[in-house]
Amino acid sequence: MKYCCNANAVRSAMARIRPHVHNTPLMTSQTLNEMTGHNVFLKTENLQKTGSFKFRGAMNAALKMKSERPEVDCLVTDSSGNHGQALALAAKKANLGCYVVMPNNSAECKLESVRGYGATVVSCEPSEIDRQEGAREVGAKHGAEYVSASQNPDVIAGQGTIGLEILQQNPNIEVIVASVGGGGLISGIATAAKDLKPEIKIIAAEPEIANDCFLSKRSGVLTANATFPTTIADGVRVSVGENTWPMVRDLVDDVITVQEDEIKAATLLAWQRCKLVIEPTAGLAIAAVLSDKFSDSLKRLLGDDKPTNVAIVICGGNIDFSAIPKLLL
Amino acid sequence: MKYCCNANAVRSAMARIRPHVHNTPLMTSQTLNEMTGHNVFLKTENLQKTGSFKFRGAMNAALKMKSERPEVDCLVTDSSGNHGQALALAAKKANLGCYVVMPNNSAECKLESVRGYGATVVSCEPSEIDRQEGAREVGAKHGAEYVSASQNPDVIAGQGTIGLEILQQNPNIEVIVASVGGGGLISGIATAAKDLKPEIKIIAAEPEIANDCFLSKRSGVLTANATFPTTIADGVRVSVGENTWPMVRDLVDDVITVQEDEIKAATLLAWQRCKLVIEPTAGLAIAAVLSDKFSDSLKRLLGDDKPTNVAIVICGGNIDFSAIPKLLL
Repeated sequence: MKYCCNANAVRSAMARIRPHVHNTPLMTSQTLNEMTGHNVFLKTENLQKTGSFKFRGAMNAALKMKSERPEVDCLVTDSSGNHGQALALAAKKANLGCYVVMPNNSAECKLESVRGYGATVVSCEPSEIDRQEGAREVGAKHGAEYVSASQNPDVIAGQGTIGLEILQQNPNIEVIVASVGGGGLISGIATAAKDLKPEIKIIAAEPEIANDCFLSKRSGVLTANATFPTTIADGVRVSVGENTWPMVRDLVDDVITVQEDEIKAATLLAWQRCKLVIEPTAGLAIAAVLSDKFSDSLKRLLGDDKPTNVAIVICGGNIDFSAIPKLLL
Repeated sequence: MKYCCNANAVRSAMARIRPHVHNTPLMTSQTLNEMTGHNVFLKTENLQKTGSFKFRGAMNAALKMKSERPEVDCLVTDSSGNHGQALALAAKKANLGCYVVMPNNSAECKLESVRGYGATVVSCEPSEIDRQEGAREVGAKHGAEYVSASQNPDVIAGQGTIGLEILQQNPNIEVIVASVGGGGLISGIATAAKDLKPEIKIIAAEPEIANDCFLSKRSGVLTANATFPTTIADGVRVSVGENTWPMVRDLVDDVITVQEDEIKAATLLAWQRCKLVIEPTAGLAIAAVLSDKFSDSLKRLLGDDKPTNVAIVICGGNIDFSAIPKLLL
């Protein structure tokens, strides 16, 4: 097929993971409506099991592995955190072992959580290459099957179930905004949502200091971040990958980049006004909608920027609480 | 009638305020289920307009005033914060003016919010007497009608709508736990819930250092806190009052007192695991359910402490973010 994931795969994923995942609320916020002039809906994946959307993809991959390749008894991944937690719990639920290769600067709460779900943490240097190398070594040593955080087709299909749920919860959604790192979330959502509603627009949110998706889309050629970025949105430090790029290229309608201060302000706004604990990588998507660039984007995509039904994917709520004072300054 | 509020008044309040208030989600938490051994449901009034349950009572009082006493054009109250914010917005929605007498140690976010809803803040010393005196002065000077945060019968009826909603959302709830300060919340809920389901148990949660309700219930005589308490649960520094006491005495089945550290830990737990921003006064109710005393209370009230369907009222989420580092230590 043209892409590594399609709408049928997302529908199969939905049927497979439904008993295990929360259909998270699609919440409204009068504050965000007033600030943006749009009808904003928050898909609250911070309330998902393990505290992020990553559990959907991980659960789909683990269950599919269990049923289709019963000889595999162990999974491994590299993850800055949320996918690691997600795969750890998914493996546990599917009665599989699990190793998680994590950068040595990961949030302590994420390390603890991975261990809490019964997985083994293997520490590595915080670069994409070191993470992938670490995962390969663990895989070879323990016979563990690698499950990429964003490039595994079953993971992408699992993340796509968010797109199905959003349009089931509110068929009038016209635009979906989600953060982009490896691209698994947004390509899954775009695949599922555009199958149900071809005219829906999908906008990616990206930090200015980790703008590989923006640069890739502008040039038409997949372009990784030159160095591993330090953005506070730690879930999107990784670049768009080979499997997600064709979908990101063809199905994502626009990329909005925002500054670190905008990410911090949007994150705090959600805490203070929406009473939701979200992580900065989720604040990133809110920041994009609050940015002046959002109006320009709507004009490009829809012809005008009149009040629009916008779903923002709140991708997670896992935050190291010792980092809050830093976040507040 | 026997009490200043009854179930009919709560039902009327529900009809009156329904178009204006959120029917807040009754959320589950696997973490709390595992920690307590019970089926825990969180009535998320932190997601209510103005960030606390107080908007229900204030909206009921303002709308009733508007329809029954059209000559009144202005309201006044004294409030440590949440009722002030709530009355400010309720008055605005009912086209009434509003003054709020607030202690000079109120959280800055609460002062800002009251002003943001268009009400006038009048500062006073942080004691119940000073607050009430301030409100009387403002009332006399501006012809403003006083709306007590917890003793006004219409306010109590409004808060009681939480009891109706909880049992509509889950008729199998066996115990409701709510924080007690002035007693408006718990007496309204007890009135409404016991009318629908006489066998339901209502448990009050109270800080050990502000245990007027506990002492009053034990002695059978209304007993105010000897001094104005400094508990971190700033919403319950006020004592049970004359109007709420008969209902607290007769309809509240038990009072569980907890220490300040337990309140802090429960508050942080909700942030970290439930991804909900809650204030310590809401953490107080969670702390009561996490306390060893909860099991003893169930044995007294139900004969055993087998797994029970427990609704915890998350009364609010208004927190001064500059206070978070203090909360974390």
